[in-house]
Amino acid sequence: MTKLVLMRHGQSLGNQANLFTGWYDLDLSSKGHKSAQAAGERLRQHGFRFDIAYSSMLQRTIHTLQHCLDALDQAWIPTYASWQLNERHYGALQGLNKTDTLKKYGAEQVQLWRRGFHTTPPPVERHSPHFPGNDPRYHALAPTNLPTTESPAMTTRRVMAFWHSTILPCLKKGQNTLIVTHGSPIRALLGHLNQLSEEDTQRLSISTGAPFVYELDEAAQPLRHYSL
Amino acid sequence: MTKLVLMRHGQSLGNQANLFTGWYDLDLSSKGHKSAQAAGERLRQHGFRFDIAYSSMLQRTIHTLQHCLDALDQAWIPTYASWQLNERHYGALQGLNKTDTLKKYGAEQVQLWRRGFHTTPPPVERHSPHFPGNDPRYHALAPTNLPTTESPAMTTRRVMAFWHSTILPCLKKGQNTLIVTHGSPIRALLGHLNQLSEEDTQRLSISTGAPFVYELDEAAQPLRHYSL
Repeated sequence: MTKLVLMRHGQSLGNQANLFTGWYDLDLSSKGHKSAQAAGERLRQHGFRFDIAYSSMLQRTIHTLQHCLDALDQAWIPTYASWQLNERHYGALQGLNKTDTLKKYGAEQVQLWRRGFHTTPPPVERHSPHFPGNDPRYHALAPTNLPTTESPAMTTRRVMAFWHSTILPCLKKGQNTLIVTHGSPIRALLGHLNQLSEEDTQRLSISTGAPFVYELDEAAQPLRHYSL
Repeated sequence: MTKLVLMRHGQSLGNQANLFTGWYDLDLSSKGHKSAQAAGERLRQHGFRFDIAYSSMLQRTIHTLQHCLDALDQAWIPTYASWQLNERHYGALQGLNKTDTLKKYGAEQVQLWRRGFHTTPPPVERHSPHFPGNDPRYHALAPTNLPTTESPAMTTRRVMAFWHSTILPCLKKGQNTLIVTHGSPIRALLGHLNQLSEEDTQRLSISTGAPFVYELDEAAQPLRHYSL
């Protein structure tokens, strides 16, 4: 039986300051570092061992993953950071305070930006530091993969492409896999694994630092799942 | 111009307690964590950027590398942990205090074990926790690659095999490469890059947390080197 664990990063400085964060690369808060260590400790106590691990290219997931692997005494396993596991790109909302944005645009508009499956927030300008084309870590990406904004549907598409190209082959080889990523990618993956409707998927609330465990058969079909 | 930086991990708990450490997986001491952060800061101040990084499978190099990449804001670059960059396996001396060993066996014998190019310390027993065959991280290794002890010559052989198979192709592609490893592998690599005799190579003293920088031409031949 192969195990897949999906986990959102611990609290980030962006969560702490109540910002739209997206691809904005803010680190874990001090509380986030601690909850990531605690999640690792919980995985260790339940006897988890991983063969391979993935994170996004943002330090809040990379550091959460490092804390987990340290707790498991598995800092040495292969780890990969992928842009396809990045949070949804929040366009021109990135870096803005959520409460201020709510006041400025109203609850209805903000709710639509946050959860409307095909809704994109206003795009970032191409000269903005929030445009990934200006960040050296994304230099190898095709220009069509550099978002100026994303809807949940667009995020889901790149996350599921990565699932099929990279994660599923690991699981089918029987590799126990740990994925540390963000709210929107986890929503996409849980929606797929639990065969939820778009609407139900968008309603899922994903806590920071809480592992979702899937036990899979040889074809990587879920047998059982639970939260830790 | 491509840059290669070789660095020994920061002070480990084994260094601090004056132990023969080898493949014994002791973490950085508190001083070691700080000096690794300081080395990363020095690299940042000198404008270093890396495309790829390697460590051994031991946490003192993995954590040193993580500190360096955090200081450079490059936690997201591809990193690989390889057993071929592990410290020399110190056989049955692993975990023993160096002063006690000196008293027990005499300075001449210990010096021979430490630096004699073809000398192996007494081997570990196959039931010992110090035999890598009992450690899950080495399960994928061929039995012939699992040492019970190593001479510097044996360590040099596996390090240079990794250099030719893995590091050299990166450098020839123009990838700026950071390697965080241990005293014996760095000695082997410096000996090769500076065309030193076996004897001169064995005499090299390698400080913890001090980067050796090599600037290389298109054929990965050294143009200039300095310590940072």
